[in-house]
Amino acid sequence: MNSADFRRHAHDLVDWMADYLDGVEEFPVKAPVRPGEIAGRLAGSPPHAGEPMATILADFRSVILPGMTHWQHPSFFAYFQANSSRPSVLAEMLTATLGAQCMMWETSPAATELEGRMLEWLRQMIGLPEGFVGSIQDTASTATLCAILAARERASAHGVGMGVGVGVNETGMNDSGVLTAYCSVEAHSSVEKNVKIAGLGRANLRQISVGDDFGMLPADLDRAIEADLAKGCRPACVVATVGTTGVSGFDPLRAIGEVCRKHDVWLHVDAAWAGNALVLPEMRWMIDGVELADSFVFNPHKWLFTNFDCSAFYVRNPAEFVRVFDILPEYLKTRDGSSVTNYRDWGIQLGRRFRALKLWFVIRSYGVEGLQQLIRSHIEMAHSLAEDIEMAEDFELLRPPVLSLLCFRFRPQGADEQSLDEINERLLQTINDSGKLYVTHTRINGTYAIRFVVGQTSTEPRHVREAWTRIQDLARDLWPAGRSAPD
Amino acid sequence: MNSADFRRHAHDLVDWMADYLDGVEEFPVKAPVRPGEIAGRLAGSPPHAGEPMATILADFRSVILPGMTHWQHPSFFAYFQANSSRPSVLAEMLTATLGAQCMMWETSPAATELEGRMLEWLRQMIGLPEGFVGSIQDTASTATLCAILAARERASAHGVGMGVGVGVNETGMNDSGVLTAYCSVEAHSSVEKNVKIAGLGRANLRQISVGDDFGMLPADLDRAIEADLAKGCRPACVVATVGTTGVSGFDPLRAIGEVCRKHDVWLHVDAAWAGNALVLPEMRWMIDGVELADSFVFNPHKWLFTNFDCSAFYVRNPAEFVRVFDILPEYLKTRDGSSVTNYRDWGIQLGRRFRALKLWFVIRSYGVEGLQQLIRSHIEMAHSLAEDIEMAEDFELLRPPVLSLLCFRFRPQGADEQSLDEINERLLQTINDSGKLYVTHTRINGTYAIRFVVGQTSTEPRHVREAWTRIQDLARDLWPAGRSAPD
Repeated sequence: MNSADFRRHAHDLVDWMADYLDGVEEFPVKAPVRPGEIAGRLAGSPPHAGEPMATILADFRSVILPGMTHWQHPSFFAYFQANSSRPSVLAEMLTATLGAQCMMWETSPAATELEGRMLEWLRQMIGLPEGFVGSIQDTASTATLCAILAARERASAHGVGMGVGVGVNETGMNDSGVLTAYCSVEAHSSVEKNVKIAGLGRANLRQISVGDDFGMLPADLDRAIEADLAKGCRPACVVATVGTTGVSGFDPLRAIGEVCRKHDVWLHVDAAWAGNALVLPEMRWMIDGVELADSFVFNPHKWLFTNFDCSAFYVRNPAEFVRVFDILPEYLKTRDGSSVTNYRDWGIQLGRRFRALKLWFVIRSYGVEGLQQLIRSHIEMAHSLAEDIEMAEDFELLRPPVLSLLCFRFRPQGADEQSLDEINERLLQTINDSGKLYVTHTRINGTYAIRFVVGQTSTEPRHVREAWTRIQDLARDLWPAGRSAPD
Repeated sequence: MNSADFRRHAHDLVDWMADYLDGVEEFPVKAPVRPGEIAGRLAGSPPHAGEPMATILADFRSVILPGMTHWQHPSFFAYFQANSSRPSVLAEMLTATLGAQCMMWETSPAATELEGRMLEWLRQMIGLPEGFVGSIQDTASTATLCAILAARERASAHGVGMGVGVGVNETGMNDSGVLTAYCSVEAHSSVEKNVKIAGLGRANLRQISVGDDFGMLPADLDRAIEADLAKGCRPACVVATVGTTGVSGFDPLRAIGEVCRKHDVWLHVDAAWAGNALVLPEMRWMIDGVELADSFVFNPHKWLFTNFDCSAFYVRNPAEFVRVFDILPEYLKTRDGSSVTNYRDWGIQLGRRFRALKLWFVIRSYGVEGLQQLIRSHIEMAHSLAEDIEMAEDFELLRPPVLSLLCFRFRPQGADEQSLDEINERLLQTINDSGKLYVTHTRINGTYAIRFVVGQTSTEPRHVREAWTRIQDLARDLWPAGRSAPD
């Protein structure tokens, strides 16, 4: 493909991209395709000769697009959003064009220094105390893995009585005794996954009970740690969650942090989604006590209008953290190596994309004020929906929104409690098959609940109102008033 | 930013992008900036009010661009390239616009099914045997970590005498005895890093000697495994390298594979860079015996014109592999969950970008033939340079190219052996400070060597010829003929 072809196709794409973002709500949110349907339309083998870009782009529209779930659709209320924005897309165009691999300072000085500055901007924006130093990770899963690895190293090095000594990175975990980790029963599944990856073993993860508000019970945490110590285990890491995935529960950081300090256990805070709402000063109560934490992660790619992937991960002691990961073979030595930040030492991967650029574009283009305004509007929409749900006699609000996540179920008159799970499961499928909105589910103390999150960049109050009208209509079609069983 | 603004700025960017790719060779390859220089030009705090995109874009050009090392420069001969291409950039524009998060089939059916198909295309293209099933990982570091974790689970589950039983994912490594891993002394630093991450401990990584050709000595590997077994260790994983980073050594896969089969040890093949040259049938000798491997990784983002990040990772037993990572909380359960591929279970991260699209664009746009032609041309350029170096009396070829990587040093008449490392270190700095080309270094049996890799998308024979002329001129300026010491 020569330069003129690139220019022509890229201009065409820009018009398509602008039209797509303008008109994305015309698409079904969730792809209406069956498993294997798209694969069946793809060639079984690669072409020997090159094909014209016009053909490829036409196939993109006719083959790929119908099989996409449209994450940027304003009626995407599922999971957590991965909301992007026009300034972020512009930055991604540049990132792709520069094609820089930002593993260390020398290979990308501007990318490295912009990353440092953007993480400092974000720190200020969310009210994280001074002294937390950040890096960009791909996802919160990876960031939490890094935290657990650092905690593992600290706990095992302490264990040999050297303060900072030789930990499991050197000796292996077979020598370390049983290292234990802690999170609430509502914590994200990535905690369990990472405890396994880090070699602690699922059996050594203690899932602590939550109170009525779905926050971890610090006294239970304390008891669990004491019990492990009594058994000769080494408590290594507590993962506290600010805004749990299922129901948006909030672990009390100060009380948990005090327990961690008492027992010298690493405290990692997973604020993947809710952390973005910390740009609102009125929401800072969520991280009261965060100064007791050793690490903290939140995802601008979830709710700060920045393209996936972009996870902001902070540690309080960068020197200790970097020692867990750094390694310096001859071919990576550089002249300025010791005086600069080399982000390759800040995590799993050696290679890194230039992800700071989109943060710079987004934060400057919206301004802090603009970001606050959008996030406030999402929270307001969720609260407004919650009021509507509470007023509907045949719906039940199971989890009111603290931020912009709420859970509810349809509870038609005449339906017995036993059938409600099945009714709501069918309702969820019907809603999503409509293509008009996309919601997902969770279970709250065993009860099947429809889970609704407001957070798409282009979501307006009318989208939430239309969603609510449609949900009611579909529910009442499924179970007309007076019926004693669903169709 | 409204739609009209986006359209206008995106069109402007396209012209900038096309011009940049056309004219990138006018920039200094390596950023001529001092540490802190770019950071000093960035605001200390985020703006309260939004700023016009025109201002941001102007700052991109005046503040960021001068601090970039230009990875797409045709005279980038450093590290391994991260070569992209115009079709790949077009795909990245679409990926950014769709903003899909492809963690599982339901959230992105087309992305999931295209990923499966692209990995199958690549498998055919590189001559990997049928039965290897692939996924996209961000980097080879991550893929190798996944392989080691799977190997760890297999070795520890075998250990409890159950064939496939409860491994360290459940019990933790404290119960597992000493698990050992093996690679050559020339293997990439990510192997050591991942052995630490996986909790095996650096002390339990055996770095096996290489022969004169820099390939691992299988008899030494066998002896090391036998010695560990005699000590009661459990050999878990061998990482063999096809095309080592330092000098492009090739571990003999068949002989290593036979050792692994004999001892029932997982064999992972790291072909991160060289694997791309397998699109050339004449290079398939590199993976003779690969059918004995359990996993295999190569990086299209290095040398297949596909934007970073895009690492192709294959396993022979997907069911065993997925069991290492899968986890299914309520909020991730979907209707078709059990009948489809959910790539969230294929690695560390839950969230995933839509990375298959760029592979589809690149492979179709170039065709297999076009990709072969470019890679052949890179190999030819390296061989041609090697001939020139061999003819120069004051240069020494330390590692002739097998593919497109070679190592050499300046060896002026009159310089004693002791000062050659220092002379070449100074020469490397002078070369890179020229801004006209970018090379890096390694050590070969302790000797400092300038390392030169041909692999940029737009590199033509003239770029390599100009680089060689410049290297000679700079070297002879540094140490004029007849001098007995450098300036």
